[in-house]
Amino acid sequence: MLPHQVDSRAPYRRVRVTRVGRATVRSAEDVAATEEPLEVRLHGRSFAVIMRTPGADRELAAGFLLSESVIRSHDDLGAVEHCHHPEHPEVHNIVDVYLLGDAAAGLEARLEQRRNILTSSSCGLCGRVTIDSLRVCASPLEGTDRIDWTVAAALPGRLRERQAVFDETGGLHGAALFTLDGECEASAEDVGRHNAVDKVIGAQLFADRVPLTGRALLVSGRASFEIVQKAWLAGVAIVCAVSAPSSLAIELADEAGITLLGFVRDGGFNIYTHPSRVLGV
Amino acid sequence: MLPHQVDSRAPYRRVRVTRVGRATVRSAEDVAATEEPLEVRLHGRSFAVIMRTPGADRELAAGFLLSESVIRSHDDLGAVEHCHHPEHPEVHNIVDVYLLGDAAAGLEARLEQRRNILTSSSCGLCGRVTIDSLRVCASPLEGTDRIDWTVAAALPGRLRERQAVFDETGGLHGAALFTLDGECEASAEDVGRHNAVDKVIGAQLFADRVPLTGRALLVSGRASFEIVQKAWLAGVAIVCAVSAPSSLAIELADEAGITLLGFVRDGGFNIYTHPSRVLGV
Repeated sequence: MLPHQVDSRAPYRRVRVTRVGRATVRSAEDVAATEEPLEVRLHGRSFAVIMRTPGADRELAAGFLLSESVIRSHDDLGAVEHCHHPEHPEVHNIVDVYLLGDAAAGLEARLEQRRNILTSSSCGLCGRVTIDSLRVCASPLEGTDRIDWTVAAALPGRLRERQAVFDETGGLHGAALFTLDGECEASAEDVGRHNAVDKVIGAQLFADRVPLTGRALLVSGRASFEIVQKAWLAGVAIVCAVSAPSSLAIELADEAGITLLGFVRDGGFNIYTHPSRVLGV
Repeated sequence: MLPHQVDSRAPYRRVRVTRVGRATVRSAEDVAATEEPLEVRLHGRSFAVIMRTPGADRELAAGFLLSESVIRSHDDLGAVEHCHHPEHPEVHNIVDVYLLGDAAAGLEARLEQRRNILTSSSCGLCGRVTIDSLRVCASPLEGTDRIDWTVAAALPGRLRERQAVFDETGGLHGAALFTLDGECEASAEDVGRHNAVDKVIGAQLFADRVPLTGRALLVSGRASFEIVQKAWLAGVAIVCAVSAPSSLAIELADEAGITLLGFVRDGGFNIYTHPSRVLGV
């Protein structure tokens, strides 16, 4: 279990990892970018939940509302304030916005039309609450899935062999599912990282292979909360990312019983959670 | 105006770019990853719109519904079919899903609870329709903003100087606004690329600088439809991305009168749209 930092405003969190390289394995301290939900409220009513890195929350809310055409200028903005939960004064994950003029007049229509970006029952207070709400529907993954560290380290090379389009455009994320001896069973590319994961999991669903025991999921970029959530619901106990995981991805993987590997590149990787599934380290 | 390819299923589109390097400027053909909206319907009713790369759409819909806990297994899935618009048989941007058993029984509650991921009035047919619906609210950007190519090429280096956290975690996207002589006015980092853009635009909104004439926006990663949309609504006529733009980002920039630069790195870049704003090439 990772320590849950009280101050939710830090842009990164210190985490302990197991660093696996060609010739060395050692425990180390690392930092992960903080990912937490921000609930944007309009006149006290929930409008959107955004997974974000804490900091500049008021600016994020204002820019988001401009992008959503809820406001057109600064003149449409009244107070933009963090609000605090009486029992959790240390968290800063709600911003309440008051609109003025025409923007305020259109509020009811907006709230009616608007739909949350995240469908989870996240209350916007803190990642922990989101995770708790998720745990209702899914049990931590157990089982005997194990992967040799040399197999894990070789997965990105195998994904690249399958990523035909990526090489040409440089604009696509890739995701793939592997057996635990490194055979690629499905891969997909998409401008959206989450879409690539949904595509490979969806393909396995059609093939009646879900829950995906005995499989490892690889994503070409970073591991976010949502990537780990998707793996959990599909029953994949080993998740590997070529780049960095977010703080909430690590926390959720810890809760979910998922072994999370990050920076899987150059023949090594970091193990963030549940290292016992990685053999030979 | 870019040619609009009829077949929406190709994972990439051919585009013409102006390649700017240290010693050379030339017109070239390039490829951009296709980005288009996919509308997922449940029993014929709109459930979500996902910006995605065409291909494996049925798998994407299935995986997405599993992630959203709408289904729990293949047994919950009935027909999963592309449906076609009578006037646009060439587009494949709607998948209709029929649920079975408990999943079907929970359909009404799901549709009630569920909110579209995108709030735009995109009909899911094709990017063109989305762009048309957006044009109602915003006029193409004009004005006399110009940037010297050497200033544009130097922007990523200036963003990196500001990206304190990025260097430590490797897990954050950066965005920054620059004056046209390359001075950084605002920057932000976030696990979400769109959030970083919202943060810098929101900060300028509070400073009463919107619409952002005389500014260039830089993003550390790729340029998606949404990034260009945000720039348009904030009035930024020059958008630079360190990595690749998507097909829809290019199309929208073309419509919006935005000069879109991609692969801004190693002292050069590609110009995808409205090259006249770039001086010295």
